[in-house]
Amino acid sequence: MLDSCLDPAMASEITLQPVRRHGVDAGIFFSDIVIPLRLAGVGVEIVPGRGPVLDSPVRTAEDVKRLADLVLTDEALTPVSEGVATTVAQLGTTPLIGFAGAPFTLAAYLVEGGPSKEHMRARAMMHADPDAWRALMEWTADITGRFLRAQLLAGASAGQLFDSWAGSLSPTDYATHVAWASHRALDAVRDLGTPLVHFGVGTGDILATMRDVGVDAVGVDWRTPLDEASRRLGGETVVQGNLDPALLAAPWTVIEEAIDDIVRRGRAAPAHVFNLGHGVPPETDPTVLTRIVEYVHSLEGSVSQ
Amino acid sequence: MLDSCLDPAMASEITLQPVRRHGVDAGIFFSDIVIPLRLAGVGVEIVPGRGPVLDSPVRTAEDVKRLADLVLTDEALTPVSEGVATTVAQLGTTPLIGFAGAPFTLAAYLVEGGPSKEHMRARAMMHADPDAWRALMEWTADITGRFLRAQLLAGASAGQLFDSWAGSLSPTDYATHVAWASHRALDAVRDLGTPLVHFGVGTGDILATMRDVGVDAVGVDWRTPLDEASRRLGGETVVQGNLDPALLAAPWTVIEEAIDDIVRRGRAAPAHVFNLGHGVPPETDPTVLTRIVEYVHSLEGSVSQ
Repeated sequence: MLDSCLDPAMASEITLQPVRRHGVDAGIFFSDIVIPLRLAGVGVEIVPGRGPVLDSPVRTAEDVKRLADLVLTDEALTPVSEGVATTVAQLGTTPLIGFAGAPFTLAAYLVEGGPSKEHMRARAMMHADPDAWRALMEWTADITGRFLRAQLLAGASAGQLFDSWAGSLSPTDYATHVAWASHRALDAVRDLGTPLVHFGVGTGDILATMRDVGVDAVGVDWRTPLDEASRRLGGETVVQGNLDPALLAAPWTVIEEAIDDIVRRGRAAPAHVFNLGHGVPPETDPTVLTRIVEYVHSLEGSVSQ
Repeated sequence: MLDSCLDPAMASEITLQPVRRHGVDAGIFFSDIVIPLRLAGVGVEIVPGRGPVLDSPVRTAEDVKRLADLVLTDEALTPVSEGVATTVAQLGTTPLIGFAGAPFTLAAYLVEGGPSKEHMRARAMMHADPDAWRALMEWTADITGRFLRAQLLAGASAGQLFDSWAGSLSPTDYATHVAWASHRALDAVRDLGTPLVHFGVGTGDILATMRDVGVDAVGVDWRTPLDEASRRLGGETVVQGNLDPALLAAPWTVIEEAIDDIVRRGRAAPAHVFNLGHGVPPETDPTVLTRIVEYVHSLEGSVSQ
């Protein structure tokens, strides 16, 4: 998995396949949020059925100090830049979205040593050792910011920051111990002027704070209806989402009804980028995805990704 | 684990220990939500580090039919009734809360065959095979209702329905495919007139629907501030929660500040039962829990559990 992310031809092909097959309006660069960790020299492997697993978790101030000595060089990022450049050349007029994990989700992997349920060790560390936490978040912000910048410089038209696990945080902890680092990560790319999207899962109560790290659009998973999400965002923020991936197994009439409802509620926002609320389950029939894209395109003024 | 739940003396002792040690205002009966499954004859074991694992998952209409033939008898529930009666006798004036899993969370275990991340198979089944889903939910509602009824008849003063995984559902799916079954489970105990509490995690967007299955109080995890939760509940529902368990690792001043904030926001509701937003992490220093109970008791008009 990580090797294919770092093989420019392979990463490009995997990025292009769904764009070719389903005719979506944009591609998202195929990668993994732990790629910048691996490129900086962190020992990490993808374990099948489990996800990214670290050689040694980062739990003490000493661990963080050792980590912070690792540097992500431009040279190490070459396979990423090449993968993006190859993809952009083949996409033609279809835009490519750059992809990066947010500092909290990366830090949660580092502290837990792998995937975890409520990321309790990471969420405890921000309180038990705030100095080590701050240093850890600074480092992850900087490497993920460099990772995203490499993609935008190589031709990606927009950037999306994935804070997959931010939904485990209380609004206070997100605002105090996390949002500043996501802001810092994006500071690495603001001068490029490309649109930025911020995505999370289960983030219904922190949508506005996620917007306020300085992005142009906020992803909303399937838990919060888009009209309510837009209300929480003050009605002036572009939203993205929010079809429940579980519906991909439903009969078409159920899917169509859900899409109609999402599009209708999405009109409460200044604009809505239609998308799933999270990733595609592996057992999904791909023809359903094609049909969804066709149907969304048939509705006036919608955009799918 | 399941054996100790079914040993009345052991279950009683485990229930009583935190009440004795921390001086909380109520105990909650020590059990596991899969106990009624086991007592009905479903093959289920707790696998250390993983959780409850089923001998064979329930995925087809045929599987559901076989399951629905299993009956939970009063006789099978005897160890539960005895455990509750022993506990109530020792608790004296301190009330005991009965404990049961909600139909969706039980069904998710049954369909997935064990713990899962987003319960995708269960959430897909409600759309792909709504008839099998309905039959599955009817059966789980009935056995978990009987499990709770046995506890209330044996002397528990209140009942709490745990829908730990309801937070993975869209508001529409919760309202359409799940809420009716939680209502049905509670129908088994309504004639007893005991107060009922409904608890979930990540349920910020379905709080009112959870209340409307007919309960007296709704649990709110740490993701939604209590004033906002109370607003979503129309300001007339008792709330319970919502201290983030990750804060148990924090210095005392941070915990105290968080409690003050929770108690202040909880005043937006007609009443607030102070509690953690979810379970206690295993590595928690128990003296912190005692101190939290003491501190909450020192605040005027608060109740802790």
